[in-house]
Amino acid sequence: MNSFGNLLRLTSFGESHGVAIGGVLDGMPANIRIDLEQVQSELNRRKPGQSNITTARKEKDQVKFLSGIYESKTTGTPIAFIIKNEGQKSNDYNELADVFRPSHADYTYFAKYKHRDPRGGGRASARETAIRVVAGAIAKQLLQDIQIVAYTESIGTISMPKNLSICPKSNDIENSLYRCPDQAVNEQLDQVIPTLIRDGDSLGGTVICRIMGVPRGWGEPIYDKLSARLSYAMMSINAVRGFELGNAFELSTMKGSEANDPMSYSNGSVKHLSNNSAGILGGISNGEEIIFRLAVKPTASIKKEQQTINKNNEEITLKINGRHDPIILPRIIPIVEAMTALVLADFYLQHRSRTID
Amino acid sequence: MNSFGNLLRLTSFGESHGVAIGGVLDGMPANIRIDLEQVQSELNRRKPGQSNITTARKEKDQVKFLSGIYESKTTGTPIAFIIKNEGQKSNDYNELADVFRPSHADYTYFAKYKHRDPRGGGRASARETAIRVVAGAIAKQLLQDIQIVAYTESIGTISMPKNLSICPKSNDIENSLYRCPDQAVNEQLDQVIPTLIRDGDSLGGTVICRIMGVPRGWGEPIYDKLSARLSYAMMSINAVRGFELGNAFELSTMKGSEANDPMSYSNGSVKHLSNNSAGILGGISNGEEIIFRLAVKPTASIKKEQQTINKNNEEITLKINGRHDPIILPRIIPIVEAMTALVLADFYLQHRSRTID
Amino acid sequence: MNSFGNLLRLTSFGESHGVAIGGVLDGMPANIRIDLEQVQSELNRRKPGQSNITTARKEKDQVKFLSGIYESKTTGTPIAFIIKNEGQKSNDYNELADVFRPSHADYTYFAKYKHRDPRGGGRASARETAIRVVAGAIAKQLLQDIQIVAYTESIGTISMPKNLSICPKSNDIENSLYRCPDQAVNEQLDQVIPTLIRDGDSLGGTVICRIMGVPRGWGEPIYDKLSARLSYAMMSINAVRGFELGNAFELSTMKGSEANDPMSYSNGSVKHLSNNSAGILGGISNGEEIIFRLAVKPTASIKKEQQTINKNNEEITLKINGRHDPIILPRIIPIVEAMTALVLADFYLQHRSRTID
Amino acid sequence: MNSFGNLLRLTSFGESHGVAIGGVLDGMPANIRIDLEQVQSELNRRKPGQSNITTARKEKDQVKFLSGIYESKTTGTPIAFIIKNEGQKSNDYNELADVFRPSHADYTYFAKYKHRDPRGGGRASARETAIRVVAGAIAKQLLQDIQIVAYTESIGTISMPKNLSICPKSNDIENSLYRCPDQAVNEQLDQVIPTLIRDGDSLGGTVICRIMGVPRGWGEPIYDKLSARLSYAMMSINAVRGFELGNAFELSTMKGSEANDPMSYSNGSVKHLSNNSAGILGGISNGEEIIFRLAVKPTASIKKEQQTINKNNEEITLKINGRHDPIILPRIIPIVEAMTALVLADFYLQHRSRTID
Repeated sequence: MNSFGNLLRLTSFGESHGVAIGGVLDGMPANIRIDLEQVQSELNRRKPGQSNITTARKEKDQVKFLSGIYESKTTGTPIAFIIKNEGQKSNDYNELADVFRPSHADYTYFAKYKHRDPRGGGRASARETAIRVVAGAIAKQLLQDIQIVAYTESIGTISMPKNLSICPKSNDIENSLYRCPDQAVNEQLDQVIPTLIRDGDSLGGTVICRIMGVPRGWGEPIYDKLSARLSYAMMSINAVRGFELGNAFELSTMKGSEANDPMSYSNGSVKHLSNNSAGILGGISNGEEIIFRLAVKPTASIKKEQQTINKNNEEITLKINGRHDPIILPRIIPIVEAMTALVLADFYLQHRSRTID
Repeated sequence: MNSFGNLLRLTSFGESHGVAIGGVLDGMPANIRIDLEQVQSELNRRKPGQSNITTARKEKDQVKFLSGIYESKTTGTPIAFIIKNEGQKSNDYNELADVFRPSHADYTYFAKYKHRDPRGGGRASARETAIRVVAGAIAKQLLQDIQIVAYTESIGTISMPKNLSICPKSNDIENSLYRCPDQAVNEQLDQVIPTLIRDGDSLGGTVICRIMGVPRGWGEPIYDKLSARLSYAMMSINAVRGFELGNAFELSTMKGSEANDPMSYSNGSVKHLSNNSAGILGGISNGEEIIFRLAVKPTASIKKEQQTINKNNEEITLKINGRHDPIILPRIIPIVEAMTALVLADFYLQHRSRTID
Repeated sequence: MNSFGNLLRLTSFGESHGVAIGGVLDGMPANIRIDLEQVQSELNRRKPGQSNITTARKEKDQVKFLSGIYESKTTGTPIAFIIKNEGQKSNDYNELADVFRPSHADYTYFAKYKHRDPRGGGRASARETAIRVVAGAIAKQLLQDIQIVAYTESIGTISMPKNLSICPKSNDIENSLYRCPDQAVNEQLDQVIPTLIRDGDSLGGTVICRIMGVPRGWGEPIYDKLSARLSYAMMSINAVRGFELGNAFELSTMKGSEANDPMSYSNGSVKHLSNNSAGILGGISNGEEIIFRLAVKPTASIKKEQQTINKNNEEITLKINGRHDPIILPRIIPIVEAMTALVLADFYLQHRSRTID
Repeated sequence: MNSFGNLLRLTSFGESHGVAIGGVLDGMPANIRIDLEQVQSELNRRKPGQSNITTARKEKDQVKFLSGIYESKTTGTPIAFIIKNEGQKSNDYNELADVFRPSHADYTYFAKYKHRDPRGGGRASARETAIRVVAGAIAKQLLQDIQIVAYTESIGTISMPKNLSICPKSNDIENSLYRCPDQAVNEQLDQVIPTLIRDGDSLGGTVICRIMGVPRGWGEPIYDKLSARLSYAMMSINAVRGFELGNAFELSTMKGSEANDPMSYSNGSVKHLSNNSAGILGGISNGEEIIFRLAVKPTASIKKEQQTINKNNEEITLKINGRHDPIILPRIIPIVEAMTALVLADFYLQHRSRTID
């Protein structure tokens, strides 16, 4: 179904080439002050057309609220909002109407729904993620003491050191075209991107997300682990194909004696002397920084020639000439943060309901 | 909450040192033939005490059904079952009653529930996963045309080649102490494990799961992607800390032109010429083999001395002397398969409800 | 939360005096033909301003679809729609901004949300039910072989005979100002209504809903009984305060030997020789007509003087001078039918998911 | 599905003639003291064999807890419990194995599940309600400041005055064989019951439930109204076929000016000068006593001859000779209270999650 979350639930709707996309965020407590400019500003971070490495489609992506907020405060009723679809040029897609683009969802949607929406990616389009960003920006405002910071760690084979011990500065992230805080990475990318674009090819990469300030004790122990839910949220983002808590794959090569995080007590508080657990044990937050890494596949839309088939099972060669993102990572960053905020806000409400003093 | 699934829903209960653990599997259609011996046999695969690399605790782990199956067929009512706790020796744990074991859930449970169950891991114990195996074994019998095969890919730094193109034989998996089908890996492990055990240390590793026979069109496009739900299911398993579809992290270093799977049509059916998408696009199955990899952290319980604190915030050193698995992977394999079966059976029922011819 | 249904789920939003109200209907199978004029026509049946016994507010109540329907067929994605709020005259309500109207939700909303929306009933307004009518009109189109007919049985003390054995004709219902098919009732009402309106008072009544064509075997046996879910759906409608299956309250005075429905078999089909069970036994449809009755309280908004308090706990006397329905029943009829359709469509999808041949 | 509730969720299982019935109550906060004797004592109130007006089956109905409670306090994990089936005499039912008993669920279950469990009512048996009583008794202990009192108002045509203004004393209820606090009703029933039993017939009646101490502001405004959820809960009880808030059907004959509840403010608190709203407005509690009435149909199992059919569609006459309750109402009372407690506890937890100070 098209809903996400339990106590705080986002329901989204809309196709990329329809009238509008939108969402309903239900479960927000009443009387929470919402900075609507902040919401729009998060949305702008995701917007296409920010640079030559993102799609040239110009969409205003102006969010319009229909309900649930009155005089800048939540009323306790569902918060509905829409974003009109203005930038679409349907003719970009007309030639693709019958084609299954490789590594897109065209073919699987056709298999599932038994029809082909000829107006572009339709519901599968990454455009839907704008809704997540709006909802997440509202959720963030419920989580005043929590900071969520995501950034690009690597693009293609060019990567920051895989050292998670230091959290980069927000400024260094936002000032980078790639939302990567590492100066060396930025410089190398600046070298290789022009060739990539000229070749009509694309790249993927990895994203790090870090969360500070989550109190101990959030999450559910068995199925609905905080880690499981974060993973679920991230794997629901288009192009994200892998999730690891901290350096989990590296941890899998270590011994228990190396991987375990010793505990100590000093200055009146419990400390973990390392953070290989990346802030979550048994599905529940332990008070340390929560960190996870995502694998993002290269953008499927490329201008290079590809072999594929169409609706009539005819084999064809294809060049995709629309406006696409050769590198999607900078635009994924705000989506990752938004989904993280939605998960945490849900657990926050759940924590309140379950804890009787 | 302690339930998993939507249309097919498992609710589990029980602490490792209580009377019994058990589960209720709700949503199974009526009149499905269930081979109960097959269920017990799956449970035996997970059982402790199978070798010196798994815990020496001897539990009979005999599943007893209370309802929902009559004359070897489902009745359509909830299938309830219990497994008595017989092997527990509470005194193994008494000395740990007040201690927070490093990288265990002791401390986070205490933070969440504000009390400490002194009788061992309690609900957080991996014992709960026996319930998943029973439920999964039933779910498998609803999925007659689907094969689910999981196996150990690596333990510590000893690994099979990271080549996913060939699916190993079940026999080679089950005949291996490590549930790893690669002869060379088995031999290397046989060399290093005695030292590991003597040192009282532990290892983690990676697991591969492959699913053949899933029809095209299963899964939901936006939040409840088949990939997202598999990830959620896997990340809910104790010690699993990372998930990737196919070689997603490797894919993140590739170009779109290398990563995309071209399509063709031959002999009356649609084929993908490579399977970098690992069987799922846009959250929906594409008819190819579904493959994912898991990162499993080393067992947290080790006999080596560790630094930690107790309930009174006193720093202590700890050696855990109970019976534990130095390598948990062979016992995780049936759990991975079970959770996979639960996810797929749920989507199967969902697919039926949504598809009107 | 503001969602209704499991496999077919309506999420609604919007306040009566905001920009718009709207809904998202998720779970409709793809490729179902939807007659959009039929949807608008159902909505027109609920519209205010149809006569002098309903509110004089003129609202165009034109539904606008944003997604999920393409070329008159469902796409399988969420169907979102909005209805703009055009008829509101906020000044009608300004004097009521601080007042708790007796037997309205003003005070309970204030108690729940700790704020008072001064723009009228806000979310509690019956305006929200327009959303239900749209969603129900779509659900009806999934239930081609099922007929749902609701009508006014009584208004105040003027009632049709409480004989449920004959289903009235749709024409007789729609041709009546009161949506009551009984000629005598209509005539008596025509006599008393002018006085009622002159006095500024209101009346309630009872509604009958009858459903023909539901196959045997729909519904869940324990908690989610078809009867329980119908009751839940009806009791969620503003002003509905009582629900009985058939003549349940009368049945409660009878003996088992009088109340039981004997069964027979003739002409190749199972028959119940009476229908005291009103089509549902053990929560599951038995193939007979499903019938239920609703108690509707008199409209709370009256022009007569009433005693109440305001936000500052000051006692005041109140005359409500807005435009209101002295008799709400004719406008409730389409809402009852819509909610019935939503319940049945949900069970239809559920039935499909649970029945494996 | 076989689960009830959102944040506090009961999942039940078991057939009347299987090994055991049981339940899992998930969502109880940790560290709540539970008086287990009180739970058993509630269960005893529902027990068969209490008198000659209830079934002569003697079941010990001893609840056994498997998890979730440690040293008389909740641990925060699922509370599982079973009740062994001991009193069943399957041969009572053998002759009924192929018969569809009139106004029972035999035929509808057969229609739904396509098989016939020959061992009695199976899952449809009222035996399942014992699970509700146990869960409700635990929920009650979370609701320390709330009193729930249910009682028999009428049996057949013998009724207390339909005046809801006075709440009877618990003692007067529990001392009555019929759980009816009215002395005159008891005396009249004593006169007519012997004949009823001799005739092998049965009676239904009405039940009143009253709830004191619910704070203002519980419930959800649109679909998940407190009244709607109570109705849903009650209509899920076997034999309950009608629900009204207070005197809703009588209210439906009144004018708004008579039905509305005026408000006043005195001694520092808000008062409603009448309680026609029965404690709920707009789906949300208003601080007054919550009152509802239920219609209970006569027990379907009677010894009188009835006409019906069997599995092979053969018409037969039937006398049901097992042990049954000629009047089920006294045993329904604790079930009504239990379901009420489950609903309220759920809204209590929901209220906590949504209210941020």
